Amino acid sequence: MPRYRLTLEYDGGPYKGFQAQGDLPTVQGVVERAVMAFTGEAVRLQAAGRTDTGVHATGQVVHVDLARDWPAQTVRNALNAHLVDEAVVVLDAEVAPEGWHARFSATERRYLYRILNRPAPPALDRGRVWHVKSHLDADAMHAAAQVLVGHHDFTTFRDLACQAKSPVKTLDLAEVSRRGEEVWLSFASRSFLHRQVRSMTGTLAEVGVGRWTSQDVKAALEARDRRACGPVAPASGLSLTGVAYAEGGAAK
Amino acid sequence: MPRYRLTLEYDGGPYKGFQAQGDLPTVQGVVERAVMAFTGEAVRLQAAGRTDTGVHATGQVVHVDLARDWPAQTVRNALNAHLVDEAVVVLDAEVAPEGWHARFSATERRYLYRILNRPAPPALDRGRVWHVKSHLDADAMHAAAQVLVGHHDFTTFRDLACQAKSPVKTLDLAEVSRRGEEVWLSFASRSFLHRQVRSMTGTLAEVGVGRWTSQDVKAALEARDRRACGPVAPASGLSLTGVAYAEGGAAK
Repeated sequence: MPRYRLTLEYDGGPYKGFQAQGDLPTVQGVVERAVMAFTGEAVRLQAAGRTDTGVHATGQVVHVDLARDWPAQTVRNALNAHLVDEAVVVLDAEVAPEGWHARFSATERRYLYRILNRPAPPALDRGRVWHVKSHLDADAMHAAAQVLVGHHDFTTFRDLACQAKSPVKTLDLAEVSRRGEEVWLSFASRSFLHRQVRSMTGTLAEVGVGRWTSQDVKAALEARDRRACGPVAPASGLSLTGVAYAEGGAAK
Repeated sequence: MPRYRLTLEYDGGPYKGFQAQGDLPTVQGVVERAVMAFTGEAVRLQAAGRTDTGVHATGQVVHVDLARDWPAQTVRNALNAHLVDEAVVVLDAEVAPEGWHARFSATERRYLYRILNRPAPPALDRGRVWHVKSHLDADAMHAAAQVLVGHHDFTTFRDLACQAKSPVKTLDLAEVSRRGEEVWLSFASRSFLHRQVRSMTGTLAEVGVGRWTSQDVKAALEARDRRACGPVAPASGLSLTGVAYAEGGAAK
Protein backbone atom coordinates (compact mmCIF):
# COMPACT_ATOMS: atom_id res chain seq x y z
CA MET A 1 0.00 0.00 0.00
CA PRO A 2 2.01 3.00 -1.22
CA ARG A 3 2.19 6.12 0.92
CA TYR A 4 2.04 9.46 -0.90
CA ARG A 5 3.60 12.62 0.40
CA LEU A 6 1.56 15.65 -0.68
CA THR A 7 2.64 19.27 -0.39
CA LEU A 8 -0.40 21.54 -0.02
CA GLU A 9 -1.07 25.22 -0.54
CA TYR A 10 -4.29 26.64 0.87
CA ASP A 11 -6.11 29.78 1.81
CA GLY A 12 -7.25 29.21 5.40
CA GLY A 13 -10.00 31.81 5.12
CA PRO A 14 -12.86 29.55 4.00
CA TYR A 15 -11.98 26.70 6.38
CA LYS A 16 -12.46 25.90 10.06
CA GLY A 17 -8.80 24.97 10.31
CA PHE A 18 -6.95 21.96 8.98
CA GLN A 19 -8.39 19.20 11.13
CA ALA A 20 -11.58 17.39 10.06
CA GLN A 21 -14.61 18.19 12.22
CA GLY A 22 -17.68 16.35 10.98
CA ASP A 23 -19.45 18.34 8.28
CA LEU A 24 -17.63 21.62 8.92
CA PRO A 25 -15.48 22.84 6.01
CA THR A 26 -11.89 21.93 6.83
CA VAL A 27 -8.77 21.48 4.73
CA GLN A 28 -8.46 17.85 5.78
CA GLY A 29 -12.12 17.25 4.98
CA VAL A 30 -11.96 18.61 1.45
CA VAL A 31 -8.74 16.75 0.61
CA GLU A 32 -10.15 13.49 2.01
CA ARG A 33 -13.27 14.00 -0.10
CA ALA A 34 -11.07 14.62 -3.17
CA VAL A 35 -9.31 11.30 -2.50
CA MET A 36 -12.71 9.60 -2.19
CA ALA A 37 -13.78 11.13 -5.52
CA PHE A 38 -10.49 10.02 -7.14
CA THR A 39 -10.05 6.43 -5.87
CA GLY A 40 -13.23 5.65 -3.91
CA GLU A 41 -11.20 5.18 -0.73
CA ALA A 42 -12.13 6.60 2.66
CA VAL A 43 -8.75 7.76 3.91
CA ARG A 44 -7.44 9.72 6.89
CA LEU A 45 -4.75 12.29 6.11
CA GLN A 46 -1.81 12.80 8.44
CA ALA A 47 -0.40 16.32 8.46
CA ALA A 48 2.84 17.94 9.63
CA GLY A 49 0.96 20.87 11.14
CA ARG A 50 -2.67 21.22 12.19
CA THR A 51 -3.22 24.86 11.26
CA ASP A 52 -5.98 26.87 12.96
CA THR A 53 -9.03 28.48 11.39
CA GLY A 54 -7.93 31.22 8.97
CA VAL A 55 -4.27 30.17 8.91
CA HIS A 56 -2.82 29.60 5.44
CA ALA A 57 -0.21 27.24 4.04
CA THR A 58 2.22 27.47 1.17
CA GLY A 59 4.06 24.30 2.19
CA GLN A 60 1.92 22.04 4.38
CA VAL A 61 2.97 18.39 4.10
CA VAL A 62 0.51 15.51 4.51
CA HIS A 63 0.49 11.84 3.72
CA VAL A 64 -2.14 9.45 2.50
CA ASP A 65 -1.99 5.69 1.94
CA LEU A 66 -3.66 4.50 -1.25
CA ALA A 67 -4.45 0.94 -2.34
CA ARG A 68 -3.08 1.36 -5.86
CA ASP A 69 0.34 2.29 -7.10
CA TRP A 70 -0.50 5.48 -9.05
CA PRO A 71 2.14 7.63 -10.70
CA ALA A 72 2.70 10.53 -8.27
CA GLN A 73 1.83 13.17 -10.87
CA THR A 74 -1.47 11.40 -11.52
CA VAL A 75 -2.29 11.70 -7.81
CA ARG A 76 -1.46 15.42 -7.84
CA ASN A 77 -3.40 16.18 -11.01
CA ALA A 78 -6.44 14.06 -10.12
CA LEU A 79 -6.74 15.57 -6.65
CA ASN A 80 -6.39 19.08 -8.08
CA ALA A 81 -9.15 18.30 -10.57
CA HIS A 82 -11.42 17.34 -7.66
CA LEU A 83 -10.33 20.40 -5.64
CA VAL A 84 -11.15 22.86 -8.41
CA ASP A 85 -13.89 24.59 -6.38
CA GLU A 86 -11.79 24.72 -3.21
CA ALA A 87 -9.03 27.07 -2.03
CA VAL A 88 -6.71 24.06 -1.59
CA VAL A 89 -4.23 22.69 -4.14
CA VAL A 90 -1.71 19.86 -4.20
CA LEU A 91 1.58 21.51 -5.20
CA ASP A 92 3.49 18.28 -5.37
CA ALA A 93 3.02 14.55 -4.81
CA GLU A 94 5.66 11.90 -4.42
CA VAL A 95 5.88 8.33 -3.18
CA ALA A 96 7.16 8.42 0.41
CA PRO A 97 10.04 6.29 1.65
CA GLU A 98 9.22 3.23 3.76
CA GLY A 99 8.24 4.19 7.31
CA TRP A 100 8.06 7.93 6.57
CA HIS A 101 5.31 9.85 8.39
CA ALA A 102 4.24 13.41 7.55
CA ARG A 103 3.89 14.35 11.20
CA PHE A 104 6.29 12.14 13.16
CA SER A 105 9.20 12.27 10.70
CA ALA A 106 9.19 16.08 10.54
CA THR A 107 12.30 17.72 12.00
CA GLU A 108 11.35 21.34 11.42
CA ARG A 109 8.27 23.46 10.74
CA ARG A 110 8.56 26.95 9.25
CA TYR A 111 5.99 29.71 9.57
CA LEU A 112 5.75 33.18 8.07
CA TYR A 113 3.70 35.96 9.64
CA ARG A 114 2.88 38.95 7.41
CA ILE A 115 1.95 42.33 8.89
CA LEU A 116 0.69 45.07 6.56
CA ASN A 117 2.04 48.21 8.19
CA ARG A 118 0.44 51.29 6.63
CA PRO A 119 -2.49 53.62 7.35
CA ALA A 120 -4.85 52.10 4.74
CA PRO A 121 -6.31 48.63 5.22
CA PRO A 122 -5.60 45.94 2.59
CA ALA A 123 -7.79 45.71 -0.49
CA LEU A 124 -5.88 42.96 -2.29
CA ASP A 125 -4.57 41.00 0.71
CA ARG A 126 -7.61 41.01 2.96
CA GLY A 127 -7.52 37.86 5.09
CA ARG A 128 -3.86 37.31 4.19
CA VAL A 129 -2.17 39.87 6.47
CA TRP A 130 -2.59 41.53 9.84
CA HIS A 131 -3.19 45.24 9.34
CA VAL A 132 -1.27 47.42 11.84
CA LYS A 133 -1.57 51.17 11.27
CA SER A 134 1.09 52.38 13.72
CA HIS A 135 4.63 52.33 12.40
CA LEU A 136 6.54 49.20 13.45
CA ASP A 137 10.28 49.28 14.13
CA ALA A 138 11.24 45.98 12.49
CA ASP A 139 14.83 46.18 13.72
CA ALA A 140 13.67 46.49 17.33
CA MET A 141 11.30 43.56 16.79
CA HIS A 142 14.12 41.46 15.34
CA ALA A 143 16.38 42.23 18.30
CA ALA A 144 13.63 41.33 20.78
CA ALA A 145 12.84 38.13 18.84
CA GLN A 146 16.34 36.86 19.58
CA VAL A 147 15.31 36.63 23.26
CA LEU A 148 12.91 33.86 22.22
CA VAL A 149 15.41 31.83 20.17
CA GLY A 150 16.73 28.73 21.93
CA HIS A 151 15.51 26.08 24.35
CA HIS A 152 12.85 27.56 26.64
CA ASP A 153 9.67 26.91 28.58
CA PHE A 154 7.18 28.72 26.29
CA THR A 155 4.20 28.57 28.68
CA THR A 156 3.71 32.34 28.25
CA PHE A 157 3.35 31.92 24.50
CA ARG A 158 0.98 28.96 24.31
CA ASP A 159 -2.78 28.92 24.29
CA LEU A 160 -4.41 27.69 27.48
CA ALA A 161 -6.06 24.97 25.40
CA CYS A 162 -2.70 23.67 24.10
CA GLN A 163 -2.54 19.90 24.48
CA ALA A 164 1.23 19.43 24.11
CA LYS A 165 2.69 17.40 26.95
CA SER A 166 5.52 19.83 27.57
CA PRO A 167 5.78 23.61 27.13
CA VAL A 168 9.51 23.28 26.55
CA LYS A 169 10.51 23.74 22.92
CA THR A 170 13.55 24.86 20.96
CA LEU A 171 12.98 27.86 18.72
CA ASP A 172 15.63 27.61 15.99
CA LEU A 173 14.93 30.83 14.11
CA ALA A 174 13.07 34.10 14.63
CA GLU A 175 13.72 36.72 11.98
CA VAL A 176 11.90 40.01 11.54
CA SER A 177 12.44 42.23 8.52
CA ARG A 178 10.68 45.03 6.68
CA ARG A 179 9.55 44.37 3.11
CA GLY A 180 8.27 47.70 1.83
CA GLU A 181 4.88 48.29 3.49
CA GLU A 182 5.03 44.89 5.19
CA VAL A 183 6.88 43.45 8.17
CA TRP A 184 7.63 39.73 7.86
CA LEU A 185 8.30 37.44 10.80
CA SER A 186 9.83 34.02 10.08
CA PHE A 187 10.00 31.28 12.67
CA ALA A 188 11.44 27.76 12.59
CA SER A 189 11.27 25.02 15.21
CA ARG A 190 11.03 21.24 15.36
CA SER A 191 7.49 21.84 16.63
CA PHE A 192 5.40 24.70 17.94
CA LEU A 193 2.88 24.97 20.75
CA HIS A 194 -0.73 25.93 20.03
CA ARG A 195 -0.89 29.61 18.98
CA GLN A 196 2.82 30.03 19.78
CA VAL A 197 3.65 31.90 16.57
CA ARG A 198 0.67 34.25 16.89
CA SER A 199 1.45 34.82 20.60
CA MET A 200 5.09 35.64 19.86
CA THR A 201 4.11 37.86 16.91
CA GLY A 202 1.57 39.87 18.88
CA THR A 203 4.09 40.36 21.66
CA LEU A 204 6.84 41.41 19.24
CA ALA A 205 4.43 43.93 17.66
CA GLU A 206 4.24 45.59 21.08
CA VAL A 207 7.99 46.06 20.78
CA GLY A 208 7.52 47.35 17.22
CA VAL A 209 5.22 50.18 18.32
CA GLY A 210 7.48 51.00 21.27
CA ARG A 211 5.25 49.88 24.14
CA TRP A 212 7.50 46.94 25.09
CA THR A 213 11.28 46.51 25.19
CA SER A 214 13.38 43.39 24.59
CA GLN A 215 13.72 43.23 28.37
CA ASP A 216 9.91 43.08 28.71
CA VAL A 217 9.84 40.16 26.27
CA LYS A 218 12.52 38.40 28.30
CA ALA A 219 10.54 38.97 31.51
CA ALA A 220 7.38 37.64 29.85
CA LEU A 221 9.19 34.49 28.70
CA GLU A 222 10.69 33.94 32.13
CA ALA A 223 7.32 34.46 33.84
CA ARG A 224 6.12 31.11 32.32
CA ASP A 225 2.62 32.54 32.70
CA ARG A 226 0.06 32.92 29.92
CA ARG A 227 -1.08 36.21 31.47
CA ALA A 228 2.36 37.70 30.76
CA CYS A 229 1.87 37.33 26.99
CA GLY A 230 1.15 40.34 24.76
CA PRO A 231 -1.95 40.39 22.54
CA VAL A 232 -2.27 37.35 20.25
CA ALA A 233 -1.94 38.30 16.56
CA PRO A 234 -4.88 37.31 14.32
CA ALA A 235 -4.85 34.13 12.22
CA SER A 236 -5.03 35.99 8.89
CA GLY A 237 -1.32 36.90 8.72
CA LEU A 238 0.00 33.40 9.38
CA SER A 239 1.17 30.76 6.86
CA LEU A 240 2.83 27.39 7.30
CA THR A 241 5.55 27.75 4.67
CA GLY A 242 7.46 24.52 4.90
CA VAL A 243 8.34 21.32 6.72
CA ALA A 244 11.76 19.67 6.82
CA TYR A 245 12.50 15.95 7.15
CA ALA A 246 15.77 14.25 8.02
CA GLU A 247 15.15 11.80 5.22
CA GLY A 248 12.86 12.05 2.25
CA GLY A 249 12.78 15.80 1.76
CA ALA A 250 14.10 19.21 2.64
CA ALA A 251 12.24 22.29 3.85
CA LYS A 252 10.50 24.19 1.09
CA MET B 1 -13.41 73.95 -4.45
CA PRO B 2 -10.36 71.84 -3.57
CA ARG B 3 -9.39 68.93 -5.79
CA TYR B 4 -8.17 65.78 -4.04
CA ARG B 5 -5.78 63.34 -5.61
CA LEU B 6 -6.52 59.81 -4.34
CA THR B 7 -4.30 56.76 -4.84
CA LEU B 8 -6.39 53.58 -4.87
CA GLU B 9 -5.69 49.90 -4.36
CA TYR B 10 -8.39 47.44 -5.40
CA ASP B 11 -9.12 43.84 -6.16
CA GLY B 12 -10.79 43.93 -9.57
CA GLY B 13 -12.45 40.53 -9.02
CA PRO B 14 -15.74 41.70 -7.50
CA TYR B 15 -16.21 44.62 -9.91
CA LYS B 16 -17.38 45.13 -13.47
CA GLY B 17 -14.34 47.26 -14.16
CA PHE B 18 -13.47 50.74 -13.00
CA GLN B 19 -16.02 52.81 -14.90
CA ALA B 20 -19.47 53.44 -13.40
CA GLN B 21 -22.27 51.58 -15.19
CA GLY B 22 -25.63 52.30 -13.54
CA ASP B 23 -26.25 49.87 -10.69
CA LEU B 24 -23.51 47.39 -11.60
CA PRO B 25 -20.74 47.05 -9.01
CA THR B 26 -17.81 49.13 -10.26
CA VAL B 27 -14.80 50.67 -8.55
CA GLN B 28 -15.89 54.16 -9.56
CA GLY B 29 -19.40 53.49 -8.31
CA VAL B 30 -18.35 52.33 -4.84
CA VAL B 31 -15.89 55.20 -4.37
CA GLU B 32 -18.48 57.75 -5.51
CA ARG B 33 -20.95 56.24 -3.04
CA ALA B 34 -18.32 56.49 -0.29
CA VAL B 35 -17.89 60.19 -1.10
CA MET B 36 -21.69 60.63 -0.94
CA ALA B 37 -21.74 58.90 2.46
CA PHE B 38 -18.88 61.11 3.68
CA THR B 39 -19.85 64.60 2.44
CA GLY B 40 -23.31 64.18 0.91
CA GLU B 41 -21.97 65.26 -2.48
CA ALA B 42 -22.78 63.53 -5.76
CA VAL B 43 -19.39 63.57 -7.46
CA ARG B 44 -17.86 62.13 -10.60
CA LEU B 45 -14.38 60.64 -10.22
CA GLN B 46 -11.76 61.14 -12.90
CA ALA B 47 -9.22 58.31 -13.18
CA ALA B 48 -5.81 57.87 -14.77
CA GLY B 49 -6.75 54.45 -16.12
CA ARG B 50 -10.12 52.84 -16.70
CA THR B 51 -9.28 49.26 -15.80
CA ASP B 52 -11.36 46.40 -17.19
CA THR B 53 -13.46 43.85 -15.30
CA GLY B 54 -11.21 41.72 -13.08
CA VAL B 55 -8.15 43.97 -13.45
CA HIS B 56 -6.57 45.07 -10.17
CA ALA B 57 -4.76 48.20 -9.05
CA THR B 58 -2.08 48.90 -6.52
CA GLY B 59 -1.55 52.48 -7.69
CA GLN B 60 -4.61 53.82 -9.55
CA VAL B 61 -4.85 57.62 -9.32
CA VAL B 62 -8.17 59.47 -9.36
CA HIS B 63 -9.37 62.92 -8.49
CA VAL B 64 -12.48 64.29 -6.90
CA ASP B 65 -13.56 67.89 -6.28
CA LEU B 66 -15.13 68.50 -2.88
CA ALA B 67 -16.94 71.59 -1.61
CA ARG B 68 -15.09 71.76 1.69
CA ASP B 69 -11.42 72.08 2.48
CA TRP B 70 -10.88 68.84 4.43
CA PRO B 71 -7.48 67.75 5.72
CA ALA B 72 -6.26 65.18 3.17
CA GLN B 73 -5.85 62.45 5.79
CA THR B 74 -9.44 63.00 6.89
CA VAL B 75 -10.57 62.35 3.31
CA ARG B 76 -8.52 59.14 3.15
CA ASN B 77 -9.68 57.83 6.52
CA ALA B 78 -13.34 58.77 6.05
CA LEU B 79 -13.53 57.16 2.61
CA ASN B 80 -11.82 54.01 3.92
CA ALA B 81 -14.35 53.85 6.75
CA HIS B 82 -17.16 53.91 4.17
CA LEU B 83 -15.35 51.37 1.95
CA VAL B 84 -14.92 48.83 4.74
CA ASP B 85 -17.12 46.23 3.04
CA GLU B 86 -15.51 46.76 -0.37
CA ALA B 87 -12.28 45.48 -1.93
CA VAL B 88 -11.21 49.09 -2.59
CA VAL B 89 -9.06 51.28 -0.34
CA VAL B 90 -7.67 54.80 -0.53
CA LEU B 91 -3.93 54.41 0.02
CA ASP B 92 -3.23 58.11 0.02
CA ALA B 93 -5.03 61.44 -0.39
CA GLU B 94 -3.52 64.83 -1.06
CA VAL B 95 -4.69 68.22 -2.23
CA ALA B 96 -3.92 68.49 -5.95
CA PRO B 97 -2.11 71.45 -7.50
CA GLU B 98 -4.18 74.00 -9.43
CA GLY B 99 -5.19 72.68 -12.84
CA TRP B 100 -4.01 69.13 -12.17
CA HIS B 101 -6.14 66.35 -13.68
CA ALA B 102 -5.81 62.65 -12.79
CA ARG B 103 -6.27 61.58 -16.39
CA PHE B 104 -5.02 64.42 -18.56
CA SER B 105 -1.96 65.36 -16.50
CA ALA B 106 -0.64 61.79 -16.43
CA THR B 107 2.63 61.28 -18.29
CA GLU B 108 3.07 57.55 -17.68
CA ARG B 109 1.02 54.51 -16.68
CA ARG B 110 2.67 51.37 -15.31
CA TYR B 111 1.18 47.90 -15.37
CA LEU B 112 2.33 44.59 -13.94
CA TYR B 113 1.18 41.24 -15.30
CA ARG B 114 1.73 38.18 -13.06
CA ILE B 115 1.83 34.66 -14.49
CA LEU B 116 1.88 31.72 -12.07
CA ASN B 117 4.00 29.18 -13.93
CA ARG B 118 3.76 25.78 -12.26
CA PRO B 119 1.74 22.58 -12.65
CA ALA B 120 -0.65 23.25 -9.73
CA PRO B 121 -3.27 26.00 -9.94
CA PRO B 122 -3.20 28.84 -7.37
CA ALA B 123 -4.95 28.36 -4.02
CA LEU B 124 -3.88 31.64 -2.42
CA ASP B 125 -3.69 33.86 -5.51
CA ARG B 126 -6.81 32.75 -7.36
CA GLY B 127 -8.05 35.70 -9.43
CA ARG B 128 -4.72 37.48 -8.98
CA VAL B 129 -2.56 35.63 -11.51
CA TRP B 130 -2.80 33.84 -14.85
CA HIS B 131 -2.03 30.16 -14.35
CA VAL B 132 0.20 28.73 -17.12
CA LYS B 133 1.27 25.10 -16.61
CA SER B 134 3.86 24.83 -19.40
CA HIS B 135 7.30 26.12 -18.54
CA LEU B 136 7.88 29.69 -19.75
CA ASP B 137 11.30 30.89 -20.89
CA ALA B 138 11.26 34.35 -19.29
CA ASP B 139 14.52 35.37 -20.97
CA ALA B 140 13.11 34.60 -24.41
CA MET B 141 9.95 36.55 -23.51
CA HIS B 142 12.06 39.52 -22.39
CA ALA B 143 14.05 39.51 -25.61
CA ALA B 144 10.86 39.36 -27.70
CA ALA B 145 9.28 42.13 -25.60
CA GLN B 146 12.02 44.52 -26.76
CA VAL B 147 10.53 44.31 -30.27
CA LEU B 148 7.47 46.11 -28.87
CA VAL B 149 9.35 48.90 -27.12
CA GLY B 150 9.30 52.24 -28.94
CA HIS B 151 6.96 54.25 -31.15
CA HIS B 152 4.72 51.90 -33.12
CA ASP B 153 1.31 51.39 -34.62
CA PHE B 154 -0.12 48.88 -32.08
CA THR B 155 -3.24 47.96 -34.09
CA THR B 156 -2.35 44.25 -33.70
CA PHE B 157 -2.37 44.61 -29.92
CA ARG B 158 -5.56 46.58 -29.38
CA ASP B 159 -9.08 45.32 -28.89
CA LEU B 160 -11.41 45.85 -31.83
CA ALA B 161 -13.63 47.88 -29.49
CA CYS B 162 -10.78 50.27 -28.58
CA GLN B 163 -11.97 53.86 -28.89
CA ALA B 164 -8.57 55.59 -28.97
CA LYS B 165 -8.26 57.95 -31.95
CA SER B 166 -4.87 56.61 -32.96
CA PRO B 167 -3.29 53.16 -32.62
CA VAL B 168 0.16 54.79 -32.52
CA LYS B 169 1.70 54.76 -29.05
CA THR B 170 5.16 54.79 -27.50
CA LEU B 171 5.92 51.83 -25.26
CA ASP B 172 8.65 53.03 -22.89
CA LEU B 173 9.33 49.82 -21.01
CA ALA B 174 8.64 46.08 -21.39
CA GLU B 175 10.49 43.91 -18.88
CA VAL B 176 9.96 40.19 -18.30
CA SER B 177 11.60 38.35 -15.43
CA ARG B 178 11.16 35.16 -13.46
CA ARG B 179 10.33 35.46 -9.74
CA GLY B 180 10.42 31.93 -8.39
CA GLU B 181 7.26 30.19 -9.63
CA GLU B 182 6.03 33.39 -11.26
CA VAL B 183 6.87 35.31 -14.41
CA TRP B 184 6.34 39.07 -14.12
CA LEU B 185 5.81 41.39 -17.06
CA SER B 186 6.16 45.14 -16.45
CA PHE B 187 5.07 47.73 -18.99
CA ALA B 188 5.21 51.52 -19.00
CA SER B 189 3.81 53.99 -21.51
CA ARG B 190 2.26 57.45 -21.55
CA SER B 191 -0.99 55.64 -22.38
CA PHE B 192 -2.12 52.23 -23.50
CA LEU B 193 -4.71 51.04 -25.98
CA HIS B 194 -7.67 48.92 -24.82
CA ARG B 195 -6.42 45.43 -23.85
CA GLN B 196 -2.92 46.30 -25.11
CA VAL B 197 -1.11 44.88 -22.08
CA ARG B 198 -3.13 41.65 -22.08
CA SER B 199 -2.67 41.31 -25.86
CA MET B 200 1.10 41.80 -25.59
CA THR B 201 1.32 39.43 -22.60
CA GLY B 202 -0.62 36.64 -24.30
CA THR B 203 1.56 36.99 -27.38
CA LEU B 204 4.77 36.98 -25.34
CA ALA B 205 3.58 33.84 -23.53
CA GLU B 206 3.55 32.14 -26.95
CA VAL B 207 7.25 32.99 -27.12
CA GLY B 208 7.69 31.68 -23.56
CA VAL B 209 6.38 28.22 -24.44
CA GLY B 210 8.39 28.15 -27.66
CA ARG B 211 5.58 28.40 -30.21
CA TRP B 212 6.55 31.92 -31.36
CA THR B 213 9.91 33.61 -31.92
CA SER B 214 10.87 37.26 -31.51
CA GLN B 215 10.67 37.46 -35.29
CA ASP B 216 7.04 36.28 -35.15
CA VAL B 217 6.26 39.05 -32.65
CA LYS B 218 7.91 41.59 -34.97
CA ALA B 219 5.87 40.30 -37.91
CA ALA B 220 2.68 40.50 -35.84
CA LEU B 221 3.42 44.11 -34.85
CA GLU B 222 4.21 45.06 -38.43
CA ALA B 223 1.04 43.39 -39.73
CA ARG B 224 -1.03 46.14 -38.00
CA ASP B 225 -3.84 43.62 -37.98
CA ARG B 226 -5.75 42.42 -34.91
CA ARG B 227 -5.88 38.91 -36.37
CA ALA B 228 -2.08 38.70 -36.14
CA CYS B 229 -2.20 38.95 -32.32
CA GLY B 230 -1.57 35.94 -30.08
CA PRO B 231 -4.17 34.87 -27.50
CA VAL B 232 -5.21 37.66 -25.12
CA ALA B 233 -4.12 36.97 -21.53
CA PRO B 234 -6.93 36.93 -18.91
CA ALA B 235 -7.73 39.97 -16.77
CA SER B 236 -6.85 38.24 -13.47
CA GLY B 237 -3.07 38.67 -13.78
CA LEU B 238 -3.12 42.39 -14.51
CA SER B 239 -2.62 45.31 -12.12
CA LEU B 240 -2.28 49.04 -12.68
CA THR B 241 0.70 49.69 -10.42
CA GLY B 242 1.36 53.39 -10.81
CA VAL B 243 0.85 56.66 -12.64
CA ALA B 244 3.45 59.38 -13.13
CA TYR B 245 2.81 63.11 -13.47
CA ALA B 246 5.16 65.84 -14.71
CA GLU B 247 4.03 68.00 -11.82
CA GLY B 248 2.39 66.99 -8.59
CA GLY B 249 3.74 63.51 -8.15
CA ALA B 250 6.02 60.73 -9.31
CA ALA B 251 5.18 57.16 -10.33
CA LYS B 252 4.58 54.85 -7.43
